[in-house]
Amino acid sequence: MKPTQASIITIGDELLIGQVIDTNSAFIAQALNKIGVKVLNRVAVGDEKEAISKALDAAAINNDIVIITGGLGPTADDITKPLLNEYFNGKMIIHEPTLAHITNIFENIHKRPMIERNRKQAEVPDVCEVLFNETGTAPGMLFKRNNVFFFSLPGVPHEMRWLIQNHVIPTIQQNFKAHTIAHRTLLTAGIGESFLAELIKDFENELPASIKLAYLPNFGMVRLRLTGTSEDDVALNKTLDTLFDQLKLAVTEFLVTDADDPMEVAVGNLLKSKNQTVATAESCTGGYIGHLLSKHAGSSQFYTGGVISYDNRIKTEFLDVSTKILTTVGAVSKEAVEQMAISVREKMKTDYGVSVSGIMGPAGQTIEKPLGMVWIGVSSKEKVYSKVFYLRFDRLRNIEVTANQAINLLRLLIINKI
Amino acid sequence: MKPTQASIITIGDELLIGQVIDTNSAFIAQALNKIGVKVLNRVAVGDEKEAISKALDAAAINNDIVIITGGLGPTADDITKPLLNEYFNGKMIIHEPTLAHITNIFENIHKRPMIERNRKQAEVPDVCEVLFNETGTAPGMLFKRNNVFFFSLPGVPHEMRWLIQNHVIPTIQQNFKAHTIAHRTLLTAGIGESFLAELIKDFENELPASIKLAYLPNFGMVRLRLTGTSEDDVALNKTLDTLFDQLKLAVTEFLVTDADDPMEVAVGNLLKSKNQTVATAESCTGGYIGHLLSKHAGSSQFYTGGVISYDNRIKTEFLDVSTKILTTVGAVSKEAVEQMAISVREKMKTDYGVSVSGIMGPAGQTIEKPLGMVWIGVSSKEKVYSKVFYLRFDRLRNIEVTANQAINLLRLLIINKI
Repeated sequence: MKPTQASIITIGDELLIGQVIDTNSAFIAQALNKIGVKVLNRVAVGDEKEAISKALDAAAINNDIVIITGGLGPTADDITKPLLNEYFNGKMIIHEPTLAHITNIFENIHKRPMIERNRKQAEVPDVCEVLFNETGTAPGMLFKRNNVFFFSLPGVPHEMRWLIQNHVIPTIQQNFKAHTIAHRTLLTAGIGESFLAELIKDFENELPASIKLAYLPNFGMVRLRLTGTSEDDVALNKTLDTLFDQLKLAVTEFLVTDADDPMEVAVGNLLKSKNQTVATAESCTGGYIGHLLSKHAGSSQFYTGGVISYDNRIKTEFLDVSTKILTTVGAVSKEAVEQMAISVREKMKTDYGVSVSGIMGPAGQTIEKPLGMVWIGVSSKEKVYSKVFYLRFDRLRNIEVTANQAINLLRLLIINKI
Repeated sequence: MKPTQASIITIGDELLIGQVIDTNSAFIAQALNKIGVKVLNRVAVGDEKEAISKALDAAAINNDIVIITGGLGPTADDITKPLLNEYFNGKMIIHEPTLAHITNIFENIHKRPMIERNRKQAEVPDVCEVLFNETGTAPGMLFKRNNVFFFSLPGVPHEMRWLIQNHVIPTIQQNFKAHTIAHRTLLTAGIGESFLAELIKDFENELPASIKLAYLPNFGMVRLRLTGTSEDDVALNKTLDTLFDQLKLAVTEFLVTDADDPMEVAVGNLLKSKNQTVATAESCTGGYIGHLLSKHAGSSQFYTGGVISYDNRIKTEFLDVSTKILTTVGAVSKEAVEQMAISVREKMKTDYGVSVSGIMGPAGQTIEKPLGMVWIGVSSKEKVYSKVFYLRFDRLRNIEVTANQAINLLRLLIINKI
């Protein structure tokens, strides 16, 4: 029996002119995957009747489930609801619980009179099952045709997520037989993709045909993922565990974490387990390292704070980088980042300090200091260490890679590898 | 004549299990749009021969151009190149300039011996035109069949971008008649989507059929976009300019910027035009405001730096928030953020200070201070202002919305609206 299959259709011209990055699809794919639904493809189409209808036709052929997001708002460019009404031969009726909910939002929360446009949000095709939306004014809808379930959800990310978790996933679990899709993911640092492939060549050659190995390079690090699908949950997980142990052993020298976590979560967990703290001193990353360390729940246990010393004056006044350093070797130097890493640790009374200073582009380079040159420093009570990197990306990517490399150096310092 | 049309196909299992967010598609769509190519749809498929072949078949039907990214790496899960070779009935040959380029990268940059796996990166189907890739080891490829151009590009974002700009766009411009697709975008703040629609109802009703109006709500703000397509570049731009002037007038009270820029760029431009500077004091956003202000080129002209006072101790020691404030009204209070906004401005000697303190979730709330409660403060030499918000998103979204609202309050202070 083939696994339950799904397609995701996202609707909105903004996706086709590149104005918006689609983060909804990744969330939906992840949620479906977790309950054993295989996502066959993801399609983005514009706010056009013909394109949406064609995408619905195509998705219905191979799938058990179609998830549609977007186009449910109160404005004229939101055409999904009338289109689905026509597609499934329905007629519009008022959904009373949704109307009561919307009325309550306007009267008691916004404290503004409700207008006809808002009232229309409570209209739904009579051929759908309404998925009540506690988090917003546009209800979700479920249509069924020839054993295919079509879920229509608003595109607003937090509303979509709430409906997926509270309506879509439970409905799928009640109505479809679950296969198990299982993954094991680990993160490596310090080795390129092709050398890593060489290192685990034997392991890869001996993999059973039912298990796939994927390489996911990012930020100068490589994630490895094993994936299998089976009706036998226990056997699959046993196979994956055995193979994953072999894989971990093969890459042990470069292993950062055997969880599917970003670098900063792995390092945060390390700090929490040791009851230790870190402070940041950022120049060229402008707060991005602080953001990575603090964006996950529980970060106040290990992240104390930081100084964003974007201007050189702040490096001197807040982090004791002497004017002598600035006028001789300059702000992008071993001397500057080592002083920054020491000062921020001492002043914020933490166990570790991390610092960066570099030239992120597109301007600011000199002959001695090319675009993408960045110094990273880390310090503990016993030690200070720094390293220079030469990056070759655009500004934003340089910032992201620098932040990840800085957190990796912190990790190496914590585990005494530098 | 219909405009030149394209489909984008992204390849990779990671896109279908939600492990990775697809940012490449948005970049490609934007680049195509700029030269008048209409993107009909975007499709993401897994690393599976059948799924990729089907997507190629489907894309070839309605389009002039198909852009394929991903699956060109040196590892076994990268199947795009052999698949395209078979699909277009080619045979593999070595591309000498690429081989020389890869050899140079390994000998002179990585300073490691090149392995067979790397050498294979220089192999290409003999039926394609090679798009030399200066930025990496995987060359781009162009296949032609029945007047459809198929471009295959690596999925590594900076390599993909370089190939789009240096090969794909020039090739399309040489071979296809350009239509003009033109947009006008503005950003509003302080008004919800449905009330905005009500405000511009008359304008929207009188829009010519050839011009589309889109509402893009995000971060509690709404972007409005007018779009038109025509073979007559001059007439289209004239029509759009006239309509855009009307639209700006209709929303003038809520207008942030009439450029397609994020909020922080609009505020950065405002500061640059006045030769003024800003410093940040961030608690719950942990550096994200600093990141937004510094991620764009030229930000050192107006962004001086900041303090990330994640731990309350840092609020006291670096930003003079008294222990009395912390023990009576607490860190999430009017008193705390006003002191933070004043101190960071004075200590960093800037014209403005911005501060935030709140409860981003999923934990940390009390009865008086619910999840999502956040105080934002802004200060100038003459004034200090603060406002409380109650957000209802998840942690990351709360951070993003808080940062955007803080930058908006800074904007209102700069233009004397608060």
